[in-house]
Amino acid sequence: MANRRMIMSAFFFNPQGDHRMSWRHPGAPGKEIFGLDYFRRLAGAAEEAKMDAIFLADHVAIWDSYESNIAHYANTRLEPLTLLSALAAVTSNIGLISTASASYTEPYNLARTFASLDHISGGRSAWNVVTSGMNEEAMNFGRDGNIEHAYRYERAAEFLETAKALWDSIEEEALLFDKRSGFFADPARVHRINHVGKHFKVRGPLNVPRPPQGYPIIVQAGSSEDGKVLAAKHAEINFSLSRSIEEGKKYRADFDARLITNGRTPDSLKILPGILPIVAASASEAEEKRDFLESLTPPRLAVDLVSSWVGKDLSSFPADGPVPELPDEGTFNGQRTNLIRVKAMAAQGMTIRQIASQVAKAGTAPVMAGTPKQIADEMEAWFIEGAADGFNLMFPVLPGDWQDFTRDVAPELQRRGLVQREYAPGTLRDKLGLQRPANMFVSAR
Amino acid sequence: MANRRMIMSAFFFNPQGDHRMSWRHPGAPGKEIFGLDYFRRLAGAAEEAKMDAIFLADHVAIWDSYESNIAHYANTRLEPLTLLSALAAVTSNIGLISTASASYTEPYNLARTFASLDHISGGRSAWNVVTSGMNEEAMNFGRDGNIEHAYRYERAAEFLETAKALWDSIEEEALLFDKRSGFFADPARVHRINHVGKHFKVRGPLNVPRPPQGYPIIVQAGSSEDGKVLAAKHAEINFSLSRSIEEGKKYRADFDARLITNGRTPDSLKILPGILPIVAASASEAEEKRDFLESLTPPRLAVDLVSSWVGKDLSSFPADGPVPELPDEGTFNGQRTNLIRVKAMAAQGMTIRQIASQVAKAGTAPVMAGTPKQIADEMEAWFIEGAADGFNLMFPVLPGDWQDFTRDVAPELQRRGLVQREYAPGTLRDKLGLQRPANMFVSAR
Repeated sequence: MANRRMIMSAFFFNPQGDHRMSWRHPGAPGKEIFGLDYFRRLAGAAEEAKMDAIFLADHVAIWDSYESNIAHYANTRLEPLTLLSALAAVTSNIGLISTASASYTEPYNLARTFASLDHISGGRSAWNVVTSGMNEEAMNFGRDGNIEHAYRYERAAEFLETAKALWDSIEEEALLFDKRSGFFADPARVHRINHVGKHFKVRGPLNVPRPPQGYPIIVQAGSSEDGKVLAAKHAEINFSLSRSIEEGKKYRADFDARLITNGRTPDSLKILPGILPIVAASASEAEEKRDFLESLTPPRLAVDLVSSWVGKDLSSFPADGPVPELPDEGTFNGQRTNLIRVKAMAAQGMTIRQIASQVAKAGTAPVMAGTPKQIADEMEAWFIEGAADGFNLMFPVLPGDWQDFTRDVAPELQRRGLVQREYAPGTLRDKLGLQRPANMFVSAR
Repeated sequence: MANRRMIMSAFFFNPQGDHRMSWRHPGAPGKEIFGLDYFRRLAGAAEEAKMDAIFLADHVAIWDSYESNIAHYANTRLEPLTLLSALAAVTSNIGLISTASASYTEPYNLARTFASLDHISGGRSAWNVVTSGMNEEAMNFGRDGNIEHAYRYERAAEFLETAKALWDSIEEEALLFDKRSGFFADPARVHRINHVGKHFKVRGPLNVPRPPQGYPIIVQAGSSEDGKVLAAKHAEINFSLSRSIEEGKKYRADFDARLITNGRTPDSLKILPGILPIVAASASEAEEKRDFLESLTPPRLAVDLVSSWVGKDLSSFPADGPVPELPDEGTFNGQRTNLIRVKAMAAQGMTIRQIASQVAKAGTAPVMAGTPKQIADEMEAWFIEGAADGFNLMFPVLPGDWQDFTRDVAPELQRRGLVQREYAPGTLRDKLGLQRPANMFVSAR
């Protein structure tokens, strides 16, 4: 425990902030979200505060199942690997975590891109493996609707095995650059992977040398059973959604058991719960900030959001009545965690309107609102109790909440010795205390 | 003609230079080719010389059909879209041309990436559309061997139509950012494309706004009949391989006729022949430089290269004998231009060894070797005669030949008023005099 420190990841999906209607906030940016300078400034502030990573979430579609979505929701954003590649050129230490879909890309292409990002960033890349649960996504890739949940996770597991073999296919010692003899590479250390599986057939070798980190750090964020099985085998960072310290500790204990079953040690997986930090001068100012944010969501958009979560149009049911029967989560092909959340609220007797308001309000991660000291206290408690190895910071409104946090909370955490004051040398793995994976072809010799 | 000027594109495939064995040259870089700094310096030099673009070629495989390939050929490089995204962050004016395969990617993914690159670079992206002609490539994407030539081009044409519809799917005026009313977008100006074709089914809309250039500039490089048909319809830059002014003029005339048939004007397609400039103090020094480069290729690698080009292992035939019967080019699924080139040499009675030596020597583009004045004279003649709208500069050895050219030849061309002395404002389209395409959804109203 002596060297254990809080890992700080600055998360974003909406470039205006994690609150769904953040774009309406007076301090939220406009069209500059499509340019590089906006992100360059955010990344610069994050590096100054010695944050560990920037985490870009992603969907491969616009959310437009219901009529309010296009009108009111800020559906557009830059592709994260493009953006992080650009940010790699103007940052030096911060980790670059990108979401990418294992359902709608090819292992050879994605392995190349991550390997290249790892090289140009000096070993700072991480891949948040997602399986893309939206119908809208499936329809952009030749399908009529979403792929079955278990099938997606099965494909993701095979995708990861294939990508790892590709990353290993040119051994570290393979490239000789021997100008005198004319031997560029040692053919015995360059491998065809000859993968033939249910989902992929890939010969290899990859045409990019092994990444500085061996593999990019593998991140996983789904908390369905299928997601946890994948994470326990492959993930090194888990982005979790726990609503309390108690829940966080249970989640940790569950994963520790799973890791051991997989022959891994608990410290090989860092669990980072998402939190929404709102810095304010007082508790009442924090409350006002929250109330203001909540006022920004059009009621219809909130209902349509719940409809998307449960795969059923709720707008045709009386808003003040109960939720109608919902799909079975065991066979549901969307994001099961969200379905279960709505079902739990319905079971408590909440009406459609109440659930919509609740969902619109808080999202799924706990809000930590208050003075810098109060926020630091709460984060410290989660960390000390073992409910978190660090946090995925989901700033409600950007750039304001990010700036407040880096200016006020980060130094407080540094004073307490909870987070780093300087970057350690080396790759992102080195900085986070994650092992560099052995090369499977070297190990097999 | 008054405003016509030479377009200068700095091309590279091998990061050590376009000569196949450039990596063995004493001045060639080592492992720094996998880092960003090497490319940042090259791009910086190119911008200082006011070059129009950097052009990154690509394959989605290692060339390893024959045993010499891995041993002697510098098969590894960074993925170009990752690298150009990073370079977008550290350059301001230069165009960023990236090769990407229409055979082994998905329209939604690639349209997003190019749209994002266009946004972060302020409208400097261009896509060199290729169809991937190597067996090695096919085998990394689920196939046993290469896809039939015509099928690849048919897919590429449908890919382009789909990508263009995606780029248009969010109209310029669609995003309102109206914080007061809560309308983020005008739903009437955000379009599902509902593409259903032989190769793709894509619903859309894209989740990135229309690129600053409308579409990235479309580049095409194959000179097969299928390639020319595609280029005449879609391309705005053509990377050609002509061995003489005469050939270049014929090529231009052929394309002019094709463009008119497609309802386009000749000036809507810029033709850039590839040339290998070798700057030297004298003609004899230039000759020495060429001889030295030629000495770097192991003879076996040269034979194996020809074997790859013609889809037949020639190493089992007597090197000093004639070339055996070769595949018919009409049904050949590899790069037909290369097959035809070898057939022409065989028809002249050249032996396998002679053809291998010839192929290893010069590549496929003409060498322009000499003093800066001699090179400028030759380029000027091609340009004035109408055989070229500019050039794709394939420097034999990097960074040396690039540095020599930007230091010595570029200023000479500037003095003659043939190339720009300063960058014009605006996007790459603006700078090159290429029209911004109309949005098909706006036009349809």
